[in-house]
Amino acid sequence: MSHAFHDLSVVQPQWVTFAQSSLLLESGKTFGTLTVQYETYGTLNEDRSNAILLVHAFSGDAHAAGYHDKPGNNPGWWFEMVGPGKAFDTNQFFIISSNCLGGCMGTTGPSSKNSETDKPFGMEFPVITIKDLVNTQRLLVEYLGISKLFAVAGGSMGGMQVLDWAVSHPHMVHKAIVLASTGRLSAQGLAFNAVGRNAIYSDPHWKNGDYYGGVYPRNGLSIARMIGHITYLSDESMALKFGRKLQEREAYGYDFDDRFQVESYLNYQGDKFVERFDANSYIYLSKAMDYFDLASYPGGIEGALGRTTCAFLLLSYSSDWLFPTYQSKELVYPMMKIGKNVSFAELSSPYGHDSFLLEHQRQGILISSFLQAPHREDQE
Amino acid sequence: MSHAFHDLSVVQPQWVTFAQSSLLLESGKTFGTLTVQYETYGTLNEDRSNAILLVHAFSGDAHAAGYHDKPGNNPGWWFEMVGPGKAFDTNQFFIISSNCLGGCMGTTGPSSKNSETDKPFGMEFPVITIKDLVNTQRLLVEYLGISKLFAVAGGSMGGMQVLDWAVSHPHMVHKAIVLASTGRLSAQGLAFNAVGRNAIYSDPHWKNGDYYGGVYPRNGLSIARMIGHITYLSDESMALKFGRKLQEREAYGYDFDDRFQVESYLNYQGDKFVERFDANSYIYLSKAMDYFDLASYPGGIEGALGRTTCAFLLLSYSSDWLFPTYQSKELVYPMMKIGKNVSFAELSSPYGHDSFLLEHQRQGILISSFLQAPHREDQE
Repeated sequence: MSHAFHDLSVVQPQWVTFAQSSLLLESGKTFGTLTVQYETYGTLNEDRSNAILLVHAFSGDAHAAGYHDKPGNNPGWWFEMVGPGKAFDTNQFFIISSNCLGGCMGTTGPSSKNSETDKPFGMEFPVITIKDLVNTQRLLVEYLGISKLFAVAGGSMGGMQVLDWAVSHPHMVHKAIVLASTGRLSAQGLAFNAVGRNAIYSDPHWKNGDYYGGVYPRNGLSIARMIGHITYLSDESMALKFGRKLQEREAYGYDFDDRFQVESYLNYQGDKFVERFDANSYIYLSKAMDYFDLASYPGGIEGALGRTTCAFLLLSYSSDWLFPTYQSKELVYPMMKIGKNVSFAELSSPYGHDSFLLEHQRQGILISSFLQAPHREDQE
Repeated sequence: MSHAFHDLSVVQPQWVTFAQSSLLLESGKTFGTLTVQYETYGTLNEDRSNAILLVHAFSGDAHAAGYHDKPGNNPGWWFEMVGPGKAFDTNQFFIISSNCLGGCMGTTGPSSKNSETDKPFGMEFPVITIKDLVNTQRLLVEYLGISKLFAVAGGSMGGMQVLDWAVSHPHMVHKAIVLASTGRLSAQGLAFNAVGRNAIYSDPHWKNGDYYGGVYPRNGLSIARMIGHITYLSDESMALKFGRKLQEREAYGYDFDDRFQVESYLNYQGDKFVERFDANSYIYLSKAMDYFDLASYPGGIEGALGRTTCAFLLLSYSSDWLFPTYQSKELVYPMMKIGKNVSFAELSSPYGHDSFLLEHQRQGILISSFLQAPHREDQE
């Protein structure tokens, strides 16, 4: 193809609403009316075989690529990865990105109105799992007339969803790209999520989730975000970025105006987050991550991965201590053992868990090569 | 010596009060009347040359060894390390352990009564530093008639104090034992402390520190402790201890009674902590740790360490990610370069930062050997 290498321009969010009971949750409950916000980039080809689903991480949204409103404004979270000539090449592929179930960026979540009560769900929202997020995406994909995805790709909580796609819907996934992710949270991962939720629960404005229209539990959500933020960075990247530099002072004043830059940064990140994220979504989505466990399948991780037919690319990042490389290897080794088509690399990077949002060039080459590489499912 | 190898029995806490202005703080302020709680174990010899000062970590207290009230009851935090025939051998040494300035276990801190106002200090308490903690210990040591300590020993925040002892009072320290510690907190360490403080600040019961006699900021302090607790353990030790086991359930119920054991454990640790620790002490002592920075001396870390005349033993622990081994090496290498008498080992241990409170046998052998090894200060 001879398309120019340039950015996507302004993109439009879209919505689709599914009727009551379209979605059966893993808990056994059925879901009411369900709206999904999504964006698409590129063009679906005639035989509908060039679709790639991007799946966002914990605090992400459907806006993965291009700009909103006007060129240059509000680039998507994977702007550098998705576009003409980029790793996810919109000259070749039709890219779909949706906000996940339980989120707060346009898809139905705890802050959405419950049609039964005409009030926001709050904690009446059902407990959801990674599988439920994936089944919601499946509704969207089928609505778009696509019976098989060329690829599914995502990092962190997005990677969990990619894994579930591959395991639960093998006939719908040709290639799976799993970045900085895991087959199940470690006890330490569970612990960080638990403390974040506790910080929200402890905020008196949380009111058991019934705060909509009143005072938001800003402090609790901000504390949760600060904890999360530390786990997304690395000791090394924080040392490079902040070291022990003071904010607004050259020397210690020995009072409570002595603040290190890293403290101010975390406060800023906490404040910024509460402007865009819902505390109850934090609770439900962190709990969805907690539940995810490929080892819980009959036959354990091998049993789960034995169901897949896609080719896999897994990338981990050397300084990611939230989902460390060993957790990717816990997926790669069984894949190799049972003869799956898997490529794996650990990228040496100082940026910690956030690396998959930053190492565009290095992971981009691996991803575009993987997307071009041959894979015949009938050989599996 | 032919003493039996047995435990210390019941020990008594003691108190000493120093007159107003005995203590000049690093901030330049003088301190009012100051009470120090301490315990001693063993017997001071005639030439007062066998005294070892133990310095506790962030949430520790003066009760390092023996029992309180009756045999078997409430063993000290380093019970297994201190006693007849143990690493810190009370047949040979006179051991001193005091609660630190700013604490809440008997030594003057933010919860103590301010004699000027007849109310608890709260946030009227002056900002204090590691140097101030050490100078308070110096008052105690001199009060006990000791002009030179055979050794000073401590882990974590205790290790920071040991380092300050060696640098600030070289003529008073013969040997220094620094476990799981650092010459300065990394940006990540600063960040964890900042989030802990923010959790306390965010608790509406904190009331800018003025909560004494009213409702305590239990939730905020509990969140802070949970965060701390995660950093004291390791990914590995949490996996060994909890894995992904559920509390009180065999299988997911997909509701908010699904709790992993690690969540219950953290809640329990948080609840237990608020029974014994003061939220304002958490604020002041975490800030004291933040300030500590041997690299801030003229000539940097080498300049600071150049002032010392003692022999050093530094131990780090392989799974300690709060004060990782590289931070011990950042002290050991300059010590070696400038010809200091230093021994260093990294113990392979799964217990994370808490290892120095658990690896009694392995660190005990190294510590007792170090205490017996010859060291001539005039050769420095």
